[in-house]
Amino acid sequence: MRVLGVDPGLTRCGVGVVEGVAGRPLTMLGVGVVRTAADAELGSRLVAIEAGIERWLDEHRPEYVAVERVFSQHNVRTVMGTAQASAIAMLCASRRGIPVALHTPSEVKAAVTGSGRADKAQVGAMVTRLLRLDAPPRPADAADALALAICHIWRAPAQNRLQRAVALHTAPGAARPAPKGRTA
Amino acid sequence: MRVLGVDPGLTRCGVGVVEGVAGRPLTMLGVGVVRTAADAELGSRLVAIEAGIERWLDEHRPEYVAVERVFSQHNVRTVMGTAQASAIAMLCASRRGIPVALHTPSEVKAAVTGSGRADKAQVGAMVTRLLRLDAPPRPADAADALALAICHIWRAPAQNRLQRAVALHTAPGAARPAPKGRTA
Repeated sequence: MRVLGVDPGLTRCGVGVVEGVAGRPLTMLGVGVVRTAADAELGSRLVAIEAGIERWLDEHRPEYVAVERVFSQHNVRTVMGTAQASAIAMLCASRRGIPVALHTPSEVKAAVTGSGRADKAQVGAMVTRLLRLDAPPRPADAADALALAICHIWRAPAQNRLQRAVALHTAPGAARPAPKGRTA
Repeated sequence: MRVLGVDPGLTRCGVGVVEGVAGRPLTMLGVGVVRTAADAELGSRLVAIEAGIERWLDEHRPEYVAVERVFSQHNVRTVMGTAQASAIAMLCASRRGIPVALHTPSEVKAAVTGSGRADKAQVGAMVTRLLRLDAPPRPADAADALALAICHIWRAPAQNRLQRAVALHTAPGAARPAPKGRTA
């Protein structure tokens, strides 16, 4: 499973590509940051983020895109920009038919460190260890993007099982599993 | 001046095109709503909004796009969706090189009704009168989009003068206006 993780932001949008499956060593295929100038006009910043994300999708052809789920309990101005940058990342992925998964910051921290309240340094250290890197990726947004991708690889099997179960029970006339041997 | 006003939202994104200049009767060229299903996946909703905005830009070729400036003091969940929908509208416009202007809800209300605290009905009534329509546009998001476009047409001259003045004073070596007759 190849996953592009995106830590959305207007000034620094972290991106990282990880390949692997749960229970096996993971491989980092790329990591970086899409930057836009803080003094540029908002519309052109969004265009630059779109171009940056498109380049990463072109180069790495991920099967999934994992984006940090934005909450609004943080700093008000930052959150609006984060929501807007995340919209661009989701748009780029969905336009190509790539499934988008959202994970909360605590889900990501818990996945890679075991604690939902881990700090940046701890996340960076675990990303470095899990991907067998020489040093923690800089800036922190890049490490967070890798952590998101790892989180998705590890959580995806459970999420997919849940989605299939829900689909089975909500599909019309599918309250029970179809009898074996039945053809549609 | 032809302006596309966008009242951003995930479920209902109001769009309206107005042509005119300040001090002359205005003309409505189109009004509508880009809708997406509330139960659809967020990524596909953003793709649908992009397609909808693109259709309006293709059909009406506006010179400006006016988008409601999103604040986060409102309902938290709504605001995130509004920020994401507005990002798509700004992206579509900026990608074509169309200038994007943001106006706050109170600026829009003050422009069309004289009061920044006017209610939806008052805005709808004034939009109907100013554009010489037979009835207020429905839903309210469509009327709000037209009000945004009107607000931009009326405020734009002042905004542009202000931007030019700021540019003159912040440009390097341009603390004073250049002497007349000087050539760059």
